Amino acid sequence: MGTMKSATYVLLAALFAAGIVLPAFAADPLPSWNDTAPKKAIVAFIKQVTRQGSANFVPVAERIATFDNDGTLWAEQPMYFQAFFVFDRVKHLAPQHPEWKSKEPFASVLRGDVKSALAGGEHALGEMLMATHACMTTEEFEKIVSDWIATAKHPATKRPYTEMVFQPMLELLAYLRANGFKTYIVSGGGIEFMRPWAEKVYGIPPEQVIGSSIKTKFELRDGKPVLVRLPELNFVDDKDGKPVGIQQHIGRRPIAAFGNSDGDLQMMQWTAAGKGARFCLYVHHTDAEREWAYDRQSHLGHLDKGLDEAKARGWTVVSMKDDWKIIYPHQKR
Amino acid sequence: MGTMKSATYVLLAALFAAGIVLPAFAADPLPSWNDTAPKKAIVAFIKQVTRQGSANFVPVAERIATFDNDGTLWAEQPMYFQAFFVFDRVKHLAPQHPEWKSKEPFASVLRGDVKSALAGGEHALGEMLMATHACMTTEEFEKIVSDWIATAKHPATKRPYTEMVFQPMLELLAYLRANGFKTYIVSGGGIEFMRPWAEKVYGIPPEQVIGSSIKTKFELRDGKPVLVRLPELNFVDDKDGKPVGIQQHIGRRPIAAFGNSDGDLQMMQWTAAGKGARFCLYVHHTDAEREWAYDRQSHLGHLDKGLDEAKARGWTVVSMKDDWKIIYPHQKR
Repeated sequence: MGTMKSATYVLLAALFAAGIVLPAFAADPLPSWNDTAPKKAIVAFIKQVTRQGSANFVPVAERIATFDNDGTLWAEQPMYFQAFFVFDRVKHLAPQHPEWKSKEPFASVLRGDVKSALAGGEHALGEMLMATHACMTTEEFEKIVSDWIATAKHPATKRPYTEMVFQPMLELLAYLRANGFKTYIVSGGGIEFMRPWAEKVYGIPPEQVIGSSIKTKFELRDGKPVLVRLPELNFVDDKDGKPVGIQQHIGRRPIAAFGNSDGDLQMMQWTAAGKGARFCLYVHHTDAEREWAYDRQSHLGHLDKGLDEAKARGWTVVSMKDDWKIIYPHQKR
Repeated sequence: MGTMKSATYVLLAALFAAGIVLPAFAADPLPSWNDTAPKKAIVAFIKQVTRQGSANFVPVAERIATFDNDGTLWAEQPMYFQAFFVFDRVKHLAPQHPEWKSKEPFASVLRGDVKSALAGGEHALGEMLMATHACMTTEEFEKIVSDWIATAKHPATKRPYTEMVFQPMLELLAYLRANGFKTYIVSGGGIEFMRPWAEKVYGIPPEQVIGSSIKTKFELRDGKPVLVRLPELNFVDDKDGKPVGIQQHIGRRPIAAFGNSDGDLQMMQWTAAGKGARFCLYVHHTDAEREWAYDRQSHLGHLDKGLDEAKARGWTVVSMKDDWKIIYPHQKR
């Protein structure tokens, strides 16, 4: 090898060893995205905020991107996946609660009648949430979630829930991080329900997961410190709550936000209202064949006002049917 | 240049350009620390958890270190510095509140009688906190704090509060970060009181600041989204609250914790109870000449049980007088 060649080799080897991500000048960072408007908008935004000297350049420390989870990073039909967790836990805990056989909404769940169980609305759901999420330590709950997510299967696809994540969004997360972004989950789901698997599945560490929570209490049990999960709501990270959760956890405004429902609208408004370049993107569930199609009339993942506001303000709307080559990682492009 | 020399040069240049921190094999990372037991314990701990193949090796993602602020990273006498902020704000806002002239605790503050103002205890302090911290947007509050901290001076030293940070602790923060640690503040002080200056002063970004908070509310004001600070307590990040705040914000247990009072004891117990190598350190205020000396009997920064537990459990206790060459950055070593 000549000097120049050898030097180049060493340089590349050093960068590689140091884990430096070189700009993807050749490879497509978003291979599961069609070359339609949303992909072009994403690439243009990233270039704009990362190019030194650009009028819209944003320092790395301020490159914050927030993602809703249910319906944005993974599927949410026919129910939020956390609801399946609740029902599975009710069944699992039933032997310790003989009274549940005649007590709603538990009795309906145990009979396999989810519809009746949910007929009690928020109150019924709240009761089941507390019965399955509280009165144990944070470590116990983490183990319960980890064990469940490792084995539970979706009723329709028969796949693990962690395989029902959206491949194009995984690529987007990686693309943002390769460009210096810190990626956060900002979900109405339970913060401690997501943390045990979010790092492995999305590359998002626990400290970058924001979600709804119940209160916890510090206790010394036989001299051993524990955090006990209390049957008391602490924070609802949905709608108006999302900007509140973002401020509480991050303390600065995101420059990019990603969602799929009206529950994400306030997060987008908050993101869009900052100075400089901003990026807001709605995932629109338009693919009845490969996933589910729902929006303005849906009982969950309701997307109505958000769709109007996205149109009025020029936010990016992804049609899953038209803009994504594949939906799930196991599918072939 | 020969091939090898040239290659080495390119390698170093590449690492330098990439901002890679090489192990400080020559320079002392803690130059303001005397070569006494605490410094040796810190260095030994860092080596233990960062050396590949070590029985106590900890992956980078789990290298979490939490620091109390008042009395640990900066001074806290004769009052928490945030209390000076409160009093300054009361004086500043007095023209808009003519009723304060005859209403305690405000009347005492306006007469310059801090002792009487504080005689009302927690209730009086809470009233002043809400009057000066709430009923404005998060952005308005951030500007008020930034403006205050840029100009306010400590009554005894006449120095800006941000110059009353402990130089040895700044070195420790940098040393931990150079070894892959994420450094957090976990303080009883207001989270939004610390965030505007913590990044510049400590190198700790807003998302790594945990503190006490009041509730906020999302609102659209003439179509512009704002977060309004409400006169309602949200969370007290002190004592039992510290492990709770750590779990809420970080979602994993620190492997190192640093404090100076009994208010930090639960954080240390929580940290120490994890598996593998753990490090807990108390800053003991023993230097009446260069700073202040106080511990078991002090009205603030009360360190009593913590000192006993540190001794019983072999935690590191820093004597500011004996273990630190200098206290503040402006002093010469």
